[in-house]
Amino acid sequence: MTTLGPNRYGKSAIRLVRVDRGAGGHQVRDLTVAIALEGDFDSSYIEGDNSLVVATDTMKNTTYALAAEHLTGSIEAFGAALGRHFLRDSQVDRATVTIDEFMWRPIGDAPDSFLRDRSWTRTAVVAATGDGLSVESGIAELVVMKTSRSAFSGFPRDEFTTLAETEDRLLATKVSATWRYVDGADVDYDASFTAVTRTLLDVFAEHHSVSVQASIWIIGRAIIERHAEIAEITMTLPNLHHWTADLERFGIPNDRQIYVSTTEPHGLIQATVRRA
Amino acid sequence: MTTLGPNRYGKSAIRLVRVDRGAGGHQVRDLTVAIALEGDFDSSYIEGDNSLVVATDTMKNTTYALAAEHLTGSIEAFGAALGRHFLRDSQVDRATVTIDEFMWRPIGDAPDSFLRDRSWTRTAVVAATGDGLSVESGIAELVVMKTSRSAFSGFPRDEFTTLAETEDRLLATKVSATWRYVDGADVDYDASFTAVTRTLLDVFAEHHSVSVQASIWIIGRAIIERHAEIAEITMTLPNLHHWTADLERFGIPNDRQIYVSTTEPHGLIQATVRRA
Amino acid sequence: MTTLGPNRYGKSAIRLVRVDRGAGGHQVRDLTVAIALEGDFDSSYIEGDNSLVVATDTMKNTTYALAAEHLTGSIEAFGAALGRHFLRDSQVDRATVTIDEFMWRPIGDAPDSFLRDRSWTRTAVVAATGDGLSVESGIAELVVMKTSRSAFSGFPRDEFTTLAETEDRLLATKVSATWRYVDGADVDYDASFTAVTRTLLDVFAEHHSVSVQASIWIIGRAIIERHAEIAEITMTLPNLHHWTADLERFGIPNDRQIYVSTTEPHGLIQATVRRA
Amino acid sequence: MTTLGPNRYGKSAIRLVRVDRGAGGHQVRDLTVAIALEGDFDSSYIEGDNSLVVATDTMKNTTYALAAEHLTGSIEAFGAALGRHFLRDSQVDRATVTIDEFMWRPIGDAPDSFLRDRSWTRTAVVAATGDGLSVESGIAELVVMKTSRSAFSGFPRDEFTTLAETEDRLLATKVSATWRYVDGADVDYDASFTAVTRTLLDVFAEHHSVSVQASIWIIGRAIIERHAEIAEITMTLPNLHHWTADLERFGIPNDRQIYVSTTEPHGLIQATVRRA
Repeated sequence: MTTLGPNRYGKSAIRLVRVDRGAGGHQVRDLTVAIALEGDFDSSYIEGDNSLVVATDTMKNTTYALAAEHLTGSIEAFGAALGRHFLRDSQVDRATVTIDEFMWRPIGDAPDSFLRDRSWTRTAVVAATGDGLSVESGIAELVVMKTSRSAFSGFPRDEFTTLAETEDRLLATKVSATWRYVDGADVDYDASFTAVTRTLLDVFAEHHSVSVQASIWIIGRAIIERHAEIAEITMTLPNLHHWTADLERFGIPNDRQIYVSTTEPHGLIQATVRRA
Repeated sequence: MTTLGPNRYGKSAIRLVRVDRGAGGHQVRDLTVAIALEGDFDSSYIEGDNSLVVATDTMKNTTYALAAEHLTGSIEAFGAALGRHFLRDSQVDRATVTIDEFMWRPIGDAPDSFLRDRSWTRTAVVAATGDGLSVESGIAELVVMKTSRSAFSGFPRDEFTTLAETEDRLLATKVSATWRYVDGADVDYDASFTAVTRTLLDVFAEHHSVSVQASIWIIGRAIIERHAEIAEITMTLPNLHHWTADLERFGIPNDRQIYVSTTEPHGLIQATVRRA
Repeated sequence: MTTLGPNRYGKSAIRLVRVDRGAGGHQVRDLTVAIALEGDFDSSYIEGDNSLVVATDTMKNTTYALAAEHLTGSIEAFGAALGRHFLRDSQVDRATVTIDEFMWRPIGDAPDSFLRDRSWTRTAVVAATGDGLSVESGIAELVVMKTSRSAFSGFPRDEFTTLAETEDRLLATKVSATWRYVDGADVDYDASFTAVTRTLLDVFAEHHSVSVQASIWIIGRAIIERHAEIAEITMTLPNLHHWTADLERFGIPNDRQIYVSTTEPHGLIQATVRRA
Repeated sequence: MTTLGPNRYGKSAIRLVRVDRGAGGHQVRDLTVAIALEGDFDSSYIEGDNSLVVATDTMKNTTYALAAEHLTGSIEAFGAALGRHFLRDSQVDRATVTIDEFMWRPIGDAPDSFLRDRSWTRTAVVAATGDGLSVESGIAELVVMKTSRSAFSGFPRDEFTTLAETEDRLLATKVSATWRYVDGADVDYDASFTAVTRTLLDVFAEHHSVSVQASIWIIGRAIIERHAEIAEITMTLPNLHHWTADLERFGIPNDRQIYVSTTEPHGLIQATVRRA
């Protein structure tokens, strides 16, 4: 006997730009949206019955259509509007809306010209169910480096260990972080994103790192302590190794000046820090 | 109060090639390996104590070192050897080994020359714990197309629905599938992979698709029914839309001959089919 | 004083699939096309006069429209039809059509189901001018490896040389090659592509490589000698280094068995071989 | 008879980071370097004689080694030092050094913490020959958008033209530009790069675009006119189309507010603007 297990379907990579042309200058919003539905869809799999299958093309059209009225604030709010819309169909138990937002900043004082700011991508995942909304916010593609105050020593050595201990290494990573909010918090998502990102960067810059693990804890704890609305944060940090170039063999001193930067292989550390 | 939640760390993107030079010709194995450990690592986060932190550099060295003795059969077996190795450290509760294998096929009759066969990537995830091994096998990057016997009709229409019903569309997708085995099954992983892939391709080719959802069910059910060792399979299928080019406006008939192929946006359907 | 120098414009990344549904089975053609025009377009730059600027959107429409009648043979022939079409506008001096063709192979005996064969991409660049057509054909994304009969020794050593000489290295590369035809040759482009690719693979497999440079010469010379229609061939070969893993430090012998495969940095060798 | 035509070889994707730790804060340089040599290398192809073949591994070592002494100013100066180094070998007629530089900006006031600034990539190509140096500078990966003052109308209409004329479209592009200097100019490459980039952005923001072609001319002419050291500039601008979403069919007004952003297909316009 064969049965259907968990399943979801939807539309991904919906690319949407909104431009608002105010008197004081234009505003650009640049999103990639994905919609996924779960619910009473077993018959579409088992019986090939499409009568309850909202077409993914319709999801795409709906995303553009609702952007006119609902993409006026945070991506979390837009995700909520989209999620609630798809819940109106009774066969839908859960509508998950995933949004990436890309930044553009004005060029000089021009009201209508922009440069893509790739410092990071803002992310949100909003799941709408009959019980309400679940919201996860995040940041991705944030590449940062510490050129001092980063060490890695005291680790165990076995027959395959060759890494030297170091009290002063270069630490580089591409941060992905997602966070959830305290139940019932009345969150200003835009303000919260700005503040959490500020803390993340500040603490990254200020702290002394004895390992990527310790850095995650120190940054995560600061975010929990400084931002009362955050219930937990999960950080995923690759360790993008920079090796000191071996120039001594050429008679050239290299006191942590010239590095070989690499991407393969890389460390990968992921942890969640929570409000207890 | 702040606490540490779930966490894991390890090394990713370890690129390894093994060549065995037999009398009858060489054999090439080409893998990308990732190692992730979970266990008693709280002190590394909270106290910055690295005394139990196996360096990810050591994980990389270990992968190459164990390949000499243990990469002689399936990637599942190599993953098991690696997983068990890392479990020997008492602070490790779970060692997860993820392996992608890339194919090379001989050029003609040459014993030592190969062409990279990108028809698909074989995958495995092996998790070793004190309770034993959990093994998941899979296939990825398998791009297939049906040029007839694919339809999509009978779906609901609302105010944002514009998609026309069709009884004859082009269906293209990039298959990702992972499967788990029946408890206690004595699995020949290489033979099982070949057989499951054969079924997947055969049923994809033979069946009439009324939706991607129905295709997943038909293919998944066939795999469960034909392969007694498979307990469940999860398939993730993007719908890579091909739209009939609108040539009628130029007076050129286009009866499903000339298509615009697209990647953004795309449908995305994921479901698990299980042995009951 | 400021003047306009060389310029060209057009449409790129036009994705086109054609399906022909014959009695004996379907045939799939999968192309990416780019069009670029040169000619009397100075006024569009200097005076902002668009009266001679064929819209790139029109180029896209034309590509789909002409595919119905003209994509019945080689991509070189389709490129020629497209190029000639754009030449009909008197302001166009040169129309360059660049086409990549991706392969699909039938799944088993199914007439209408296909698997994307990524062994290589076939390429063509056709330039149409008042003087006629210039055709360049090629192959790309062909990844090959030699596991023996590859050496690199006898190279000069200076103060920065650390590479050991080797008589038996692993050689891996991703071949890009383009070739031009003898003037006036009556070329069957499909047959020529198949034959040239066969020679390229055969000689790659059979020859002893003392360097990538020597390999290019040996392969290129064979292509010139065996294929009377080829006037010259240019090959671009990255040297995708595979380093023997240093396992001896762990007491594990590694006689060219376990390799670290890398992509950064890589050698890059490019040369043209010509019929004299 | 077969002969060897043009050829070059070298090392690509050499990834190098330099950190200088001054009292007032650290400075990070992040480069990708490629070296290519041309000269008397025919025997390496035709006779398999490696005695004049500087190993590409040596080129890599040399790049790191020379960075200690010579990467103290512009990438153009570092490229010149590298190029001149390889010319010392008499078989080398031309050494071409290609450098991409990636930006990092300090996080707040921290002296040793940086965020990768992906606003653009700075580029340089320096070719050293017996006759001296040839220098080309550039910028790449600069993504910009105009939300008004961009039109495209007055273009010719033929049987395949369907594009509507527009006086107000969204214009988005990813700028690649390279420029050459007036012979004998005494160039401060860093200052020139900053100034040229400023002009490029300012004029992009200020001008009214009637086509991408006209934009290239207006921007290029301004660069030539305002920067006496620049002899010519070549710009390559994809037209990353943003289509107004068709919401009217849903009864939703959409006066240039909601756009579908696309990457395939795209226009591509390339032109050189020169000092006469």
